[in-house]
Amino acid sequence: MTILIAHLGPSGTFAEAAALRYSTWLNQQTQQETTLCPYPSIAQTMQAVAQGQADLAVVPVENSIEGSVTTTLDTLWQCDTLQIQQALVLPISHAFITRAQTIDAVETVYSHPQALAQCHQWLEKFLPAAQIISTNSTAEALQYLDDNLTAGAIASQRAAQLYNLPVLACPINDHPDNCTRFWVLGLQPSPGGNCTSLAFTVHDVPGALLKPLQVFAQQNINLSKIESRPTKKSLGDYLFFVDLEADARQTNVQAALKELVEQTATLKVFGSYTILPT
Amino acid sequence: MTILIAHLGPSGTFAEAAALRYSTWLNQQTQQETTLCPYPSIAQTMQAVAQGQADLAVVPVENSIEGSVTTTLDTLWQCDTLQIQQALVLPISHAFITRAQTIDAVETVYSHPQALAQCHQWLEKFLPAAQIISTNSTAEALQYLDDNLTAGAIASQRAAQLYNLPVLACPINDHPDNCTRFWVLGLQPSPGGNCTSLAFTVHDVPGALLKPLQVFAQQNINLSKIESRPTKKSLGDYLFFVDLEADARQTNVQAALKELVEQTATLKVFGSYTILPT
Repeated sequence: MTILIAHLGPSGTFAEAAALRYSTWLNQQTQQETTLCPYPSIAQTMQAVAQGQADLAVVPVENSIEGSVTTTLDTLWQCDTLQIQQALVLPISHAFITRAQTIDAVETVYSHPQALAQCHQWLEKFLPAAQIISTNSTAEALQYLDDNLTAGAIASQRAAQLYNLPVLACPINDHPDNCTRFWVLGLQPSPGGNCTSLAFTVHDVPGALLKPLQVFAQQNINLSKIESRPTKKSLGDYLFFVDLEADARQTNVQAALKELVEQTATLKVFGSYTILPT
Repeated sequence: MTILIAHLGPSGTFAEAAALRYSTWLNQQTQQETTLCPYPSIAQTMQAVAQGQADLAVVPVENSIEGSVTTTLDTLWQCDTLQIQQALVLPISHAFITRAQTIDAVETVYSHPQALAQCHQWLEKFLPAAQIISTNSTAEALQYLDDNLTAGAIASQRAAQLYNLPVLACPINDHPDNCTRFWVLGLQPSPGGNCTSLAFTVHDVPGALLKPLQVFAQQNINLSKIESRPTKKSLGDYLFFVDLEADARQTNVQAALKELVEQTATLKVFGSYTILPT
């Protein structure tokens, strides 16, 4: 039986490239066949797995320039049955794709907001007057180039090849070491590994965040990342997303999680996993 | 001499409304005259103060739905001479503004990415097929409505009045209790108050984030918010922005800051301040 892997579509997105990379690795490990399924948004990609339409979802978590992909964090908190199976990191190189003869002819630029942000300085320098139009994905942006000689798009070189479109400049990302971390999400328990991700809310009392952080400190567990996200109820009311450099099966992590239940209002553990070697 | 207050322009933005609110308060307190100066981006608003072209900048820091305004945090880290003078919170109510006769006639929607995100569900429900176009500010979006009967914009009711444009629906934000926290930034030392904001980087060793968090815990200082932002060098390399519920003049905070210098790679304290009563 083939494993259905959901990703942000259409064909040509960086999420698809990450899904292909994971799929190749999975096939080498388990000889299982996989089928990629594109979805129109990150939230729908994750909901497809939560609702059993797909087996796994490959979604971006954070970019080295722009930081967290907040949709992914917010949707993970909502779809709390999803567990992280694997992390993988992909280098991200953006290309400027257009049918225009010269860059001066470009009046509008289409891309996903994260890609536009990662190429902000390049756009400011070469296309300061262009109108910037957000699309649901980098690959979707390419559909606006049909028969339009004043439109440009930011997407991968791979996407340009797939759709047989000319690349005017590459790479155009402001920082050369641009990369994105992806998570593979599924309904089965996490496999374990040296990264653990969780999130919690705290009770509305002074010092409420202090206690959970003390729990990690006392158990000598290192936090590699901590991030506040609004609960969307009122300003100053947060969810805290934490990445631990530890495995939830370790005795000290088990002890910390047990104590965290007491020290938090809601605690959700999204699993322990490894990062796929590049 | 009039005090020059920079804000994201043009006239009609929420940042201008926040600047007006602060300006009224300042005038009541000190009888000083103020002049508002619009700038085309948040980064330019802050740089204007850092470079001495304006005395103060009023900039959004976080929204109750969408979370941090990352440009503000990233620019504050870069312009590290700026100190927080005051915080203020503004309720944010978005209006759908258009010259179209009915909503079905609207083909494109213009607004600032934060406003678009705050009205995401409304747009999905009423304008699922519309093209979404990002602008530098909500007020700037209104310039696209001139002579265009198929364009709509998301901005404040106040902006619609200023530009004499019809409001088709209001409020359209997905959460009714939508509000945004602003900072007033300047070059003079912060006045002190029960909120302190700072940011730091840590050395690249295991447990590096543990130490600074332990320092706050040991001094019984509550963190109300903690946020990782990429240093833009490599993935997993972060700045940590922290809001403390304490005044930097308190003895325990002084002790913590002294120890933090040892436990961090770079530490920047952006000052202690109060939140303006609404």
